[in-house]
Amino acid sequence: MDRLRCYACGATTSESDRYRCSCGEPLWLDTDPTGFEWPADTDRSMWRYSALLPAVTPTGLAASAGGTPLVRTDRLDGDVGATVSVKYEGSNPTGTFKDRGSAVGVAMAKTGTVATVSHGNMARSMAAHAASAGLDCLVFVPADVPQERLSLLARYDPTILRIEGEYGRLYEASLRLGRAHDIAVVNSDAPARVAGQKTTGLEILAAFAPSVPDAIVLPVSSGGHASGIWKGIEELFAAGVVTERPRLYFVQAAACAPIAAAWDRGETTVAPVDGGETVAYSIANADPPSGNRVLAAARRTSGGVLAVDDDAILDARRTLSERTGLFVESACATALAGARALGRQRAFEPDDEVVLVATGTGFTERDLATPSVSAPTVPLADLDDAVAARTD
Amino acid sequence: MDRLRCYACGATTSESDRYRCSCGEPLWLDTDPTGFEWPADTDRSMWRYSALLPAVTPTGLAASAGGTPLVRTDRLDGDVGATVSVKYEGSNPTGTFKDRGSAVGVAMAKTGTVATVSHGNMARSMAAHAASAGLDCLVFVPADVPQERLSLLARYDPTILRIEGEYGRLYEASLRLGRAHDIAVVNSDAPARVAGQKTTGLEILAAFAPSVPDAIVLPVSSGGHASGIWKGIEELFAAGVVTERPRLYFVQAAACAPIAAAWDRGETTVAPVDGGETVAYSIANADPPSGNRVLAAARRTSGGVLAVDDDAILDARRTLSERTGLFVESACATALAGARALGRQRAFEPDDEVVLVATGTGFTERDLATPSVSAPTVPLADLDDAVAARTD
Repeated sequence: MDRLRCYACGATTSESDRYRCSCGEPLWLDTDPTGFEWPADTDRSMWRYSALLPAVTPTGLAASAGGTPLVRTDRLDGDVGATVSVKYEGSNPTGTFKDRGSAVGVAMAKTGTVATVSHGNMARSMAAHAASAGLDCLVFVPADVPQERLSLLARYDPTILRIEGEYGRLYEASLRLGRAHDIAVVNSDAPARVAGQKTTGLEILAAFAPSVPDAIVLPVSSGGHASGIWKGIEELFAAGVVTERPRLYFVQAAACAPIAAAWDRGETTVAPVDGGETVAYSIANADPPSGNRVLAAARRTSGGVLAVDDDAILDARRTLSERTGLFVESACATALAGARALGRQRAFEPDDEVVLVATGTGFTERDLATPSVSAPTVPLADLDDAVAARTD
Repeated sequence: MDRLRCYACGATTSESDRYRCSCGEPLWLDTDPTGFEWPADTDRSMWRYSALLPAVTPTGLAASAGGTPLVRTDRLDGDVGATVSVKYEGSNPTGTFKDRGSAVGVAMAKTGTVATVSHGNMARSMAAHAASAGLDCLVFVPADVPQERLSLLARYDPTILRIEGEYGRLYEASLRLGRAHDIAVVNSDAPARVAGQKTTGLEILAAFAPSVPDAIVLPVSSGGHASGIWKGIEELFAAGVVTERPRLYFVQAAACAPIAAAWDRGETTVAPVDGGETVAYSIANADPPSGNRVLAAARRTSGGVLAVDDDAILDARRTLSERTGLFVESACATALAGARALGRQRAFEPDDEVVLVATGTGFTERDLATPSVSAPTVPLADLDDAVAARTD
C-alpha cells in the first residue's frame, strides 16, 4: 500500500520517503482499486473511502476530517450559466481541505515529530492534527509572516521557526532535513497528503452517483489538492464505478499564475514566475511543485487552467456570502470567479452539473481589512416605524 | 406537525406563531415519535432525522446543516476523569450550532422576511440562511455592538438595525413586531429553532447507539439549544430507541449565571440577574427565556447546572486547541471548564462516556485579543542546526 508510483512515467518505488521519481516528476501512493464499490454510508468522514486510502487507523481529529457538505446553490446558476453546487471544505475541523491531507499524513507518520513548510492553512491544519495525535510539530514560516497569522497558528502550540532567506528553497530543504533528522515532513503535495486530498473528489462523485458531474472548478496552488482529486477520479474510472471523467478546471490568481501561463502557451511543464501580491495569497505559489501534474490533469480530463484578477476574486467572494451564505477565504473565491469566466467563454451548457470547490472558510482570514459597517441607530420606542418603513 | 405543546403543563395549541403557553412557559413543536427507528445512514446532514422534524423541504444552506463530527479526545480523559468526546459544532456552515435552528426556522418561514434579535452567532447564521433562501433578513443589534462583529455579519448583507434602549426588552418586542408586520421572527428559543437544535442530541445519541452516553455537558445561554437536546432525548425515549437518559449538565459563565444561581438555590424558576462582563459574552444572557426549561431538563435527567469563571474558561479554550486540535469560541470552552469542575466533584466514573458540546469555532471571535507570538528567526543556512537542536 505504501508503494509509490510516478503519474508521468509509471515507474514505481518502495522507498516510501521519496517525493520524486527518477524522471523528476512527483510520485503518489500506488493503489489497487480493483473491485471498489461505493461504500454503505456509515462513516460520515473521508474514511468511508478507506478501501482507497493507506491502511492506517485514524484517531482524534484525523478521524473527523472530510465528509463536507455539497451545497446546491441555485442562486449562482445564472452567474455561471450552469447548474451550480459548492463543495464546502470550510466544514473541516480546521476550516480547510488541508485537514484531509493532514489526517493521512499524520496518521502515517512513523516518527514523534512532523513538520511542514507553510504559513497559512496547511500550517494550522498540521499543527492541529499533530496536537490531537500528541506529536511534536515543526512549522517553517517566512521571517515576515503577519503576526495575526502567527497568533492563529500558535493556538495549537507547534514549534514555529521563522526562516530568513529564500522561502521557496525551503520545500526541497525540508525534505532533506526530514531524512537527516527522522522527521515526517508533510508538505502540500506529499504522497500521503495527496492520498488524503483524493477524498474531496471521491465525495463529490459519490454525491452524483450513478451519474457524474460535468465539471469541477477549484483553486490551484502547489497542485497537491488538484492532483488528489484527479487521482481519485482515475481510480474510480479504473474500478469501473464511473465511465466518464468530469472536466477539471483549475484557477489561479492573475498576479501569480505560473500554471495558467504554461497552459496558455500549450506547454506540458510549468516555469517559475516572479509572483506579485494578490488577495488570494494562500494560493500564490510562484514555483508549484506539482504544476506539471496539474497540466496533465487538465489535459486528460478535457478541462483547463485559467487566471482571474483580484477584483473578480473579491466580487466572487462577496457574491458567495450574499447569495449562498458561504463566507469563504479570498483564495477559494477564485473558483467562482473562474467559473464565471468559463461561463462567459461558453464552457458550460445550462444543464451542466458544475461543482465549485470552496477550499476554506473566510473566518480565518484576519489580515484582510474588514469593511466598516454603517447601520442606522433606532430608539427602541421608534422600532415599529423603522420596521414598517422597511417591510410594509 | 406544527402543533405546539407546553413542556411544563402539557397544554397544546395550533396557533403556530405563539411562543408561550398560557401558563407562561415556552411552547415547542409537538411531535409523534411513535415507530421511529435509527435511519439508514444516507443523508449526512441533520435531515437524516426528518421523521422527527417539521415537514419542510430544506434547500441550499439549510440542507447542509448538522452532521457534525463527534471527536474522541482521549487527551482530555485525565483532565475530566472520564472517557471524553467532543461534538464539534464548528463544522456547521456558519461555524456554530445555530445553523441547525436557522435551517428549520428559515425553511418554515411563510413570509419574505425573517428577523432575529442577536449580535453574534445567531445573527450570522440567520443572515446566511436567509441569503441562501433569497429571503430578506432583519437583525436587531445593540447600539454599541463592536465594529468587528458587525463587519462579519454584514458579509451576508442583512438589514441591520442598532437599537438604542434596553436590549433585553427586544426579545418580547420583536415577537410583537413580527405579528404586526408579517415577519418570521426566529429568536434563540423559537419552537422552529428548538426543533432544529434537537438534532444535536439525536446525532450524539446515534453515535453511541445501541448504547447511550452517560453525560452531555454544554454551555447554556437562552436555553434554546439545551431545550432542543433534552427534547430529542425525550422523543427517543418515548420511541423506545433509548431506555435511559444521559445526564444533561449545563454550564454558564460565573459573571452572568442566572440559571446556575437558581439551580444552586434549588429553585424551579430563574430570576433575572445584573450580568457582568465575561470572555464568554455570547452566552451572557441575564434573563434567559428558556431558563426554567433548562432547570427542568437538568432535574429530569439527573444532571445539573454550574458556573465557571473566566480564567477556567480561557484555560479550557487553550487546552482544547493544544490537546485536541479544536480551536473553539470562548463561550463554548465553558463545556470543558464545566466538565473539569464536575470531575473534581466526582460526578463521573473513569469509564463514563462524557460528551462535551463545542458549540462554535473560535475563528469568528475577532474581538478577543490575539496573543503576540515570538518565534525564533533562523537563517536558511543555519536551519539544519536549529532543527537538530530541537529534535535530536
